Amino acid sequence: MSTAWTSRYAARTKGLTSSAIRDLLKVIQKPGMISFAGGLPAPDVFPAQRFAEACHKVLTENASQALQYGATEGYEPLRELIANNMARYGIKARIENVLITSGSQQALDLIGKLFINAGDHVLVEAPTYLGALQAFNVYGAEYLAVPSDENGLRTDLLEAPLRSGPKFMYVLPNFQNPAGTTLSEGRRHELVLLADRYGIPIVEDDPYGQLRYEGEHLPSLVVLDRENLRRDNGYSIGNVIYLSTFSKTLAPGLRLGWIVAPPEVIGKLAQLKQGADLHTSTFTQFVAYEVARDGFLDSHVKLIRQVYRERRDVMLQALQEFFPPVVTWTHPQGGLFLWVTLPRGVDIEAVFRTALEQNVAFVPGTSFYAHDGRRNEGRADDDCEGCRHMRLNFSNATPEQIREGVRRLAAAVKAHLSQSIVRLELKL
Amino acid sequence: MSTAWTSRYAARTKGLTSSAIRDLLKVIQKPGMISFAGGLPAPDVFPAQRFAEACHKVLTENASQALQYGATEGYEPLRELIANNMARYGIKARIENVLITSGSQQALDLIGKLFINAGDHVLVEAPTYLGALQAFNVYGAEYLAVPSDENGLRTDLLEAPLRSGPKFMYVLPNFQNPAGTTLSEGRRHELVLLADRYGIPIVEDDPYGQLRYEGEHLPSLVVLDRENLRRDNGYSIGNVIYLSTFSKTLAPGLRLGWIVAPPEVIGKLAQLKQGADLHTSTFTQFVAYEVARDGFLDSHVKLIRQVYRERRDVMLQALQEFFPPVVTWTHPQGGLFLWVTLPRGVDIEAVFRTALEQNVAFVPGTSFYAHDGRRNEGRADDDCEGCRHMRLNFSNATPEQIREGVRRLAAAVKAHLSQSIVRLELKL
Repeated sequence: MSTAWTSRYAARTKGLTSSAIRDLLKVIQKPGMISFAGGLPAPDVFPAQRFAEACHKVLTENASQALQYGATEGYEPLRELIANNMARYGIKARIENVLITSGSQQALDLIGKLFINAGDHVLVEAPTYLGALQAFNVYGAEYLAVPSDENGLRTDLLEAPLRSGPKFMYVLPNFQNPAGTTLSEGRRHELVLLADRYGIPIVEDDPYGQLRYEGEHLPSLVVLDRENLRRDNGYSIGNVIYLSTFSKTLAPGLRLGWIVAPPEVIGKLAQLKQGADLHTSTFTQFVAYEVARDGFLDSHVKLIRQVYRERRDVMLQALQEFFPPVVTWTHPQGGLFLWVTLPRGVDIEAVFRTALEQNVAFVPGTSFYAHDGRRNEGRADDDCEGCRHMRLNFSNATPEQIREGVRRLAAAVKAHLSQSIVRLELKL
Repeated sequence: MSTAWTSRYAARTKGLTSSAIRDLLKVIQKPGMISFAGGLPAPDVFPAQRFAEACHKVLTENASQALQYGATEGYEPLRELIANNMARYGIKARIENVLITSGSQQALDLIGKLFINAGDHVLVEAPTYLGALQAFNVYGAEYLAVPSDENGLRTDLLEAPLRSGPKFMYVLPNFQNPAGTTLSEGRRHELVLLADRYGIPIVEDDPYGQLRYEGEHLPSLVVLDRENLRRDNGYSIGNVIYLSTFSKTLAPGLRLGWIVAPPEVIGKLAQLKQGADLHTSTFTQFVAYEVARDGFLDSHVKLIRQVYRERRDVMLQALQEFFPPVVTWTHPQGGLFLWVTLPRGVDIEAVFRTALEQNVAFVPGTSFYAHDGRRNEGRADDDCEGCRHMRLNFSNATPEQIREGVRRLAAAVKAHLSQSIVRLELKL
């Protein structure tokens, strides 16, 4: 139905289209579907009993505060708990460095709102987190996309784009979404030094940092920024804004994330947050505090690591077993995702359709590029960014489902692989 | 501390300052303070026991969904409950007309994002809700402010500003914040007809509509829009976007509001919401549904009406008893606020400071005008919009506190009244 509204959209909403993932999540609800598509935690590790106890405590002892309006910056005990938790990973933050957000996604939106003028460039990894692109797009961001490899962002390719003066860099150093790769320690140092040399600050998005299944924890950019540049003023916060969330360690249904930034930036972000949603739910903040306190968060993270490590291993094993040798994939040291690369010439959308018919879902790689990865005019199929990649999530399905899902996926891939080889041969 | 960030703010954040109310809420935490400043519900009516039962049920029966990611549009049973609840007030909405938001404040932000280009005009009441101005300002809104009186927006003054083509009108018809006035039925009809004649749609913000303490319910603009214009296509939704919230009927700490709009507009808003916070907390939506269902919301609203009606009457009585006859105030038929008008020449900021010294708080009227109400260059004190007004909230304090607070406030006002009379006499 057409109304006076539909002719009145603002210019910023031009090209606003539903994300591939969003449309997809509707398809994968169908029974029998094994989904590697979403970034959903395993529901069987949600600490439901602990949540029930926390709700009971909050509502019997503190309902008049927990159900009331609260401070825009967030519930102070929760901010303090977050600061203390991060300190154990070397991130020294005071309460005034921490802003509670309605999930990490809101952090990205507020950062876009505070910093991006239409036409500003943001330097991103290729591929990168789709939700960040969605958040920044609406403020008119353009992108400088720098390739990554198995050691994360290619810092050797950074100087030219940094010289062109992007507003900031957006980087996921740990178990990146979608690629599952981790930025090496050497590149972390290099990145922070380059940021300082060119005066281009960094947004470090770290939703998965605590979910490491092998290897040693690597220092966050926000920590290196202080150490490298001898900014030891008692807390770590300088040229790096750090984001994290409880979505992967407690529960995404809470919608609780946070931003760590210099107090002046936190102040501005809080003013924007006030206009955006006044504050994040007081109730979920009180409940999350009661759930996480007294060491529960740490012990629960240990459990999650165990469960997800097993699922990752089952997926890696199944890929090895069922996929043909021309297909490769990343070996994530943590997080929720791995990234599969098919041979040139494969039609990923056809693979996707076949996979859905076989009741298995993934996200085609084309969704994760700042410059739309779909086939562009005058571009050969096999130049298309993401066109031969699949993002596979291994946290949500059970080990049994993972094996069966990879088996189905391998069948779908093989069907199209033989076709693409025929096409390639015809070309030669 | 200066960092690379602080020189990089986007143009839209120019003039971003903390709201008067926000700074104020920090002051009024001090012990012994009686606050008429916030718009806070009475914590003693929060249904804590019902919440505890709802949490227990949700977490024992449905934790794996309630703690997981959810649909951007919201939890379907809750959207249906909202649609059914609104139907009893004549608003016919289908599920696809309802988008759950993180409080009504997010509804305002998403509407600003979807419709406002920098420089667009929004027609607002003078005075109007401060939070709407904050939400729209960041998208570069300018304002056409139309005066209101004891019957709400002066529809007789609308034609000229409508002719100049604002993007939309933003109106609070019921127990307006801050004035406490209600748009008369005749003006409602006129407003909807004018909106149609000039093709200017309306955002109807209705957080308090169910909290009526006397008189008959008046039809919503969204209902009249359909009736007047014979748009009976099975649901009410045309040129009016309708907003409401659970903040005043269940608990503001949930941060649960909703938007009613044509499906195409809901689709666009949902895409923007996805970039802004993915979705509103699944957990609070599940809990709110369990709390509100089976008629509880209605019976609880009846209780709230009773409690707030008494508090309103105590405040009206105390104003009558303690305030000098030159001071006038509105008689709200519902909602949370009334609006006090002092004689010309009073320095409201001086009154405010004295009141805080006496441990009683209110919000100076200057905060509620689109064109900054504070003293403008070349403008006499007594022309300043809002400079002789106070917004008083009567829902949060107990009846005893209300009487004592009004007594203190009257003393503060009287002190400055005698000074302003001296000043006026000196002028004559």
